[in-house]
Amino acid sequence: MSPGLASALGAARVFDLEQLRYQGAPSHPAHAPGFNYFLHRHHAPGATEARTGASGIVVMPEHSGTHIDALAHQAENLTLHGGVHVDSGVQTSAGFRVLGIETMAPLLGRGLLLDVAGAQRLPDEHQITPEELERAAAGAGVEVGAGDVVLVRTGFGALWSEPSAYLKAAGVSGPASRWLVDRKVKAVGADNMAWDVMGPTDAELGVTLPGHVLLLVRAGIPIIENLNLEELAAAKVYEFAFVCLPLKMRGATGSPVRPIAIAGP
Amino acid sequence: MSPGLASALGAARVFDLEQLRYQGAPSHPAHAPGFNYFLHRHHAPGATEARTGASGIVVMPEHSGTHIDALAHQAENLTLHGGVHVDSGVQTSAGFRVLGIETMAPLLGRGLLLDVAGAQRLPDEHQITPEELERAAAGAGVEVGAGDVVLVRTGFGALWSEPSAYLKAAGVSGPASRWLVDRKVKAVGADNMAWDVMGPTDAELGVTLPGHVLLLVRAGIPIIENLNLEELAAAKVYEFAFVCLPLKMRGATGSPVRPIAIAGP
Amino acid sequence: MSPGLASALGAARVFDLEQLRYQGAPSHPAHAPGFNYFLHRHHAPGATEARTGASGIVVMPEHSGTHIDALAHQAENLTLHGGVHVDSGVQTSAGFRVLGIETMAPLLGRGLLLDVAGAQRLPDEHQITPEELERAAAGAGVEVGAGDVVLVRTGFGALWSEPSAYLKAAGVSGPASRWLVDRKVKAVGADNMAWDVMGPTDAELGVTLPGHVLLLVRAGIPIIENLNLEELAAAKVYEFAFVCLPLKMRGATGSPVRPIAIAGP
Amino acid sequence: MSPGLASALGAARVFDLEQLRYQGAPSHPAHAPGFNYFLHRHHAPGATEARTGASGIVVMPEHSGTHIDALAHQAENLTLHGGVHVDSGVQTSAGFRVLGIETMAPLLGRGLLLDVAGAQRLPDEHQITPEELERAAAGAGVEVGAGDVVLVRTGFGALWSEPSAYLKAAGVSGPASRWLVDRKVKAVGADNMAWDVMGPTDAELGVTLPGHVLLLVRAGIPIIENLNLEELAAAKVYEFAFVCLPLKMRGATGSPVRPIAIAGP
Repeated sequence: MSPGLASALGAARVFDLEQLRYQGAPSHPAHAPGFNYFLHRHHAPGATEARTGASGIVVMPEHSGTHIDALAHQAENLTLHGGVHVDSGVQTSAGFRVLGIETMAPLLGRGLLLDVAGAQRLPDEHQITPEELERAAAGAGVEVGAGDVVLVRTGFGALWSEPSAYLKAAGVSGPASRWLVDRKVKAVGADNMAWDVMGPTDAELGVTLPGHVLLLVRAGIPIIENLNLEELAAAKVYEFAFVCLPLKMRGATGSPVRPIAIAGP
Repeated sequence: MSPGLASALGAARVFDLEQLRYQGAPSHPAHAPGFNYFLHRHHAPGATEARTGASGIVVMPEHSGTHIDALAHQAENLTLHGGVHVDSGVQTSAGFRVLGIETMAPLLGRGLLLDVAGAQRLPDEHQITPEELERAAAGAGVEVGAGDVVLVRTGFGALWSEPSAYLKAAGVSGPASRWLVDRKVKAVGADNMAWDVMGPTDAELGVTLPGHVLLLVRAGIPIIENLNLEELAAAKVYEFAFVCLPLKMRGATGSPVRPIAIAGP
Repeated sequence: MSPGLASALGAARVFDLEQLRYQGAPSHPAHAPGFNYFLHRHHAPGATEARTGASGIVVMPEHSGTHIDALAHQAENLTLHGGVHVDSGVQTSAGFRVLGIETMAPLLGRGLLLDVAGAQRLPDEHQITPEELERAAAGAGVEVGAGDVVLVRTGFGALWSEPSAYLKAAGVSGPASRWLVDRKVKAVGADNMAWDVMGPTDAELGVTLPGHVLLLVRAGIPIIENLNLEELAAAKVYEFAFVCLPLKMRGATGSPVRPIAIAGP
Repeated sequence: MSPGLASALGAARVFDLEQLRYQGAPSHPAHAPGFNYFLHRHHAPGATEARTGASGIVVMPEHSGTHIDALAHQAENLTLHGGVHVDSGVQTSAGFRVLGIETMAPLLGRGLLLDVAGAQRLPDEHQITPEELERAAAGAGVEVGAGDVVLVRTGFGALWSEPSAYLKAAGVSGPASRWLVDRKVKAVGADNMAWDVMGPTDAELGVTLPGHVLLLVRAGIPIIENLNLEELAAAKVYEFAFVCLPLKMRGATGSPVRPIAIAGP
């Protein structure tokens, strides 16, 4: 039993790191039409009893809103993490038979905020360098270590209600992703659409979104996208207990999530 | 900062209380077609670079699989919790303007397992009585109190891969829901489709699914359905830290969730 | 038997009046997210036999692209065509029990093109008057009569690939809809999003989209929207055999269609 | 102009060959979840004007209900009709760049009913032979020729409201499909789920659903499935004008349709 843990959690300040899900929220072009919700069962007069139930239907890419990428999401030369070659035994019309999101355990542990943006949003499409990560860690008085969940703040999370501005977000450069891989972090996340800056080809790897190859494919480190880190940064909470609970959707390449940071007493 | 909490979480045994999401999983008739996932972006030869991304589309009622009900889900005489009358200012085609799932905070605190089933699954459509809840609490050496999250086990969670058997699950009777309301619990959950037994009309309230009226509408206590409590029961963990993180889908009447029970040191 | 009719149809010039359906096509705000198609079953190596099947999933409002409105689509003071009061016996979460699109017979008969635009697209949001309809009919040498299907051309159909321009289309004024009702036409259609101009309130009726009330609710005349009349107008075919075959989707308020005009020998 | 054709169509008896679309209708396992319609925009009190609009959202495989297969639907050794090799330039997550349903012209011409079943439904999973087709044609006094649309009746169309019985339908054997290919028909259709009998491997081709290879891939002849031929057969109309209007959904491998048979004077 864990009365201590339960009451600690009950007393702690909880930071909600999820952005609101709504039709028209920022969406990557590859993940159109983004989040959609239709309420078709309404509370209405004329029911057969006093109780009525209302409910709806959700249509969304698993990569909509705040979400975590499963390892199957990305391949390099048609090979997934761990050297799994993608063939019809692995990849089906209903999802992946290996490395789908349902294989990802609940994510709990030490979380760190690297607030690269600080008081001012980073420039559009700025590529965060390893030095900037180091400086943010030093400024926060934390050291990135094995097993940590590292959240990088660009400041673009504040633009969630302005899709076109949001889609120009700064991101983490290939070298900075490598810096995190070298520190053996457990997971990473950022307050932008794609962790990486969208568009440019990485000089060393020769691919776009280099962090997706370095983290997901090569290192097996999941990426969380579209985080809302504004409140956490404003409170200057740089170290916290982190919890993220991906939905076990069989075969899916990711899951919408509502990660939280818990700042304990 | 909370290094203590983070490392406690990292070291704890975590019980995953979510059932697997897959096409064909048990589904309430009102929530057809249940969970569906279509992988349309495939890793395939011929891409313009070595990196490829795969992803899909999810179509599901918000009440599919393991999920939590928002307060807007139920009405009594067209009135929601707190006396909110349902009209076109409250209920829209895109969801509710009040009491939608996006208004529900992350749920953290003490959780209790009331294992009414114990070694043997309850009979089909058995209605759990207050006395059975009391006996389960006594057997577990716990006392249900204000602010607790109470999970009731019928044993039907083991039948998740057998939809027609699963849909005959036992449930919590109206009086037993009232017993929980009286103890001012924060949330409840069960390992069945509807918390209540589906079908019968409650003698006192004159409605089906009486717990939905008593808990959601009258008391404002959310209900979690389709939990998997098998592992937790097998480990005889009756008291734990409970975490449940509903997705903030604007206006929706519930959310799929992956609740966890943390048995700390 | 009808060898004559069959061979006449085989020999005739057929005009395709449907716009292309694609993700991103013009869509009325009330009908987001418009048309979506996801191909999840791919032809891929590694199948168990030489034959493979590919297929996908369609997510769309029934009012996407070229479509016909069922009578249940519109109500005036909560009353449908024929004085049917909308209550929970008529309107359900799965559609209408009366006047849904499945009750609409295949539409065949004489079609007329009233090419109000002619050589030049009408001005943005221009409201077509009865006089303009009369002039177009006179210019074409046709007379609108009972049982005719009347297609009105604004010229905006040419802008189908430019959604924001398309949504500013001209439309049919309330008085011009009334003019058509008076002539007892069987159905009407136009090359714009909403038949009516979107936005303005009709002075006489006090509602937006007055044609929807006059035609659908009061007169029981279906409306076809988002037609492509460009080729028909270019060929100066003003009278033709018209065929439109709505899908019998139970309870739906409309159907995507591919209407054709057949110019016989 | 074609006043003759229009009035002939207006006066003709039209047979509706489409089955009703509803949630729970028969569906091929590969095309789950079948047809779904959700009405989320309701007529309800409290609107800002007297006029209200109701509408919903359709979620369906393009191969649901009565539908026509596009040529891209099937491949043999990863090759489509006309020798098109399937690669990433041809097959995308949003559909096919060649041979998608949007490339199929409206289908008009002479239709023939080969009523193999006659007064009695064929046995479950019976494979119709060329001799049976010949006998049906002879009995009807028609000769199958180039350019005809040939509809084959098994009698299972009468079981549309009984999905499990319907899915055991008789179908057209490989040799009978070849017989039709040899006669250079323009399109074929049947009152069952898959034209072919589902399950058995064709001895000659070594594939299941041999008609799909022979007709779609090798001969470029589209297949219409889930037709309702009951009324046509009851009226003993064996020759007619046939019209089928596939929706131009870009890249899709088929389209729901409402084909009609017109028995002219």
